Amino acid sequence: MVKQIIGRYAVEFDRFMRETVAKNLTDENGYGVMVRYAMGWVNEDDTPYSKTTGKRLRPTLLLLCNETASGNWKHALAAASAVELLHNFSLIHDDIQDVSDLRHGRPTVWKIWGTANAINAGDAMFALAYTSMQRLTEYVSTEQALKAWQIFNHTNLELTRGQHLDMRFETLDKVAVGDYISMIHGKTAALLATCAQLGALIATDNDEIAQYYRDFGLNIGIAFQIRDDILGIWGEPDITGKSAATDIISRKKSLPILYGLEQSNLFVQLYTKPTFNDKDVLYAVELLDNINAQKYAREQEALYYEKAMTALEAAQPTGDTSMLRGFVDFLFQRDY
Amino acid sequence: MVKQIIGRYAVEFDRFMRETVAKNLTDENGYGVMVRYAMGWVNEDDTPYSKTTGKRLRPTLLLLCNETASGNWKHALAAASAVELLHNFSLIHDDIQDVSDLRHGRPTVWKIWGTANAINAGDAMFALAYTSMQRLTEYVSTEQALKAWQIFNHTNLELTRGQHLDMRFETLDKVAVGDYISMIHGKTAALLATCAQLGALIATDNDEIAQYYRDFGLNIGIAFQIRDDILGIWGEPDITGKSAATDIISRKKSLPILYGLEQSNLFVQLYTKPTFNDKDVLYAVELLDNINAQKYAREQEALYYEKAMTALEAAQPTGDTSMLRGFVDFLFQRDY
Repeated sequence: MVKQIIGRYAVEFDRFMRETVAKNLTDENGYGVMVRYAMGWVNEDDTPYSKTTGKRLRPTLLLLCNETASGNWKHALAAASAVELLHNFSLIHDDIQDVSDLRHGRPTVWKIWGTANAINAGDAMFALAYTSMQRLTEYVSTEQALKAWQIFNHTNLELTRGQHLDMRFETLDKVAVGDYISMIHGKTAALLATCAQLGALIATDNDEIAQYYRDFGLNIGIAFQIRDDILGIWGEPDITGKSAATDIISRKKSLPILYGLEQSNLFVQLYTKPTFNDKDVLYAVELLDNINAQKYAREQEALYYEKAMTALEAAQPTGDTSMLRGFVDFLFQRDY
Repeated sequence: MVKQIIGRYAVEFDRFMRETVAKNLTDENGYGVMVRYAMGWVNEDDTPYSKTTGKRLRPTLLLLCNETASGNWKHALAAASAVELLHNFSLIHDDIQDVSDLRHGRPTVWKIWGTANAINAGDAMFALAYTSMQRLTEYVSTEQALKAWQIFNHTNLELTRGQHLDMRFETLDKVAVGDYISMIHGKTAALLATCAQLGALIATDNDEIAQYYRDFGLNIGIAFQIRDDILGIWGEPDITGKSAATDIISRKKSLPILYGLEQSNLFVQLYTKPTFNDKDVLYAVELLDNINAQKYAREQEALYYEKAMTALEAAQPTGDTSMLRGFVDFLFQRDY
């Protein structure tokens, strides 16, 4: 089902995005290859790369919301391509910031070309995202294009705010649950919110309807992050592709862990240990289970999920909602 | 004279730029302070910083071209503030890429807050530059604002291309003079070209006139960079604020040095030495003098300067050109 949904847009979306990059990026002295590599189009030596990297959740959400609001999705490709380029720009810089060696199973851009080049390749992709958004003027009025630009800009600032909080929280012993939700507003949810909003705005040119879609996307984003947090502790390794309790091993400040630090002195005490052995990890999970941390997180996930669905109802979709609902089901089942 | 010119816009320009940043940058957990510090508004601890950093060449050029084309410069403040924010964004990332400890006599952003935070603060300032540009819609038509956006976007890609070439050239033994000019097109000249073009476009809404101004700014930028290259070898330390022959010591690939590598085998031979002592530096300058490298560079500077002035004539300025000419004289005399 979900493959059909993503596949619906794949060919034209890909064509649009590659065309935008090819037309606007001068390919000089190994400059363009970094961008193409990060997009998953080529190998390090600029030969074609065939495996699909990334899941294109963001552009798909944007185009689905556009269709759900009775839009012609081909008119929204410039925005869909912009959010995908923006997302990939942020991954290039994230990987430097987190000193991550791998992304989608391949060496990261900084790992191959060095930090200085990776910063610059990210900056180029940031500019390309705006270039793509600018192509909206080929399909919609200048007023609508400017409105989309404004929303996009605002989102970019939100992303840097979320990224700042995320890095800041890593240095703190304790983070309040409320502050954590504020962080994922920026870090995960803001871009999904913008996808939903832009899709609807391009379809309807109605700010009020687009705002309901934004609320839908925002709450889907928060719920999705919380679900990810749950899987980071209780997920099955063969489904998530990560080792069990990976977020405990890496001491990630995820929602269940922050809840544990708030509710369990034993958990706080355990977390003073500089390193964890296998027994410590099992004990940490046990302590979280004792205070029903998983149940708490699931309730929070359900809360934001419900908020999202209420917002979608309030938007009074004029188009067929079945594909969008199918896509959301896929996000929350993770049946891939 | 030049203080009066820059001073003409200073108060309103500053107000506009600070207002744009304050309105759009959420100030959370030490996030905003990095941006304000980089702009030279505050100290590391967010207390006011009084010394002026930077010379505001770019916004001043933009506003002067606007007035020279009979514009109301207050309508161009959004663009002037955008180019200044963009320039400062690029400095934050440049300083990481070059591992520079100092900028305007103060520790660089990455030196104080670390690389990860500095990358993010730069990204935030990049987005703020677009936010400022977007405020053009308060003063000009949506069509004009979109045109300005397009030019700005294109420039941002040019800047990353120039930055890439600059970093790339550092790793090469030899760079052709033509490639060097292509690099400074992006690295120095593209933003000055855009300043002149945007100033004129906002004044006239005439693409052809704006293009002449762009040519003016582009050639001024190249001439200015070549002048900087000359001063990096033959400049008086008490005027340039750098030690004599600083570009030789740092083996910068500047125009006279590339000319030396093309024209003098003795110079090429000297450059194979892994480190230079004082005698080597003096000998390098002597070798450059033997092949008239300074004369060559001065001729190139004059060539681009003349191109710039021809373009300015071709633009047929409708306003008073005396301030703009005074400003250009100042750039090339460096009497500050």
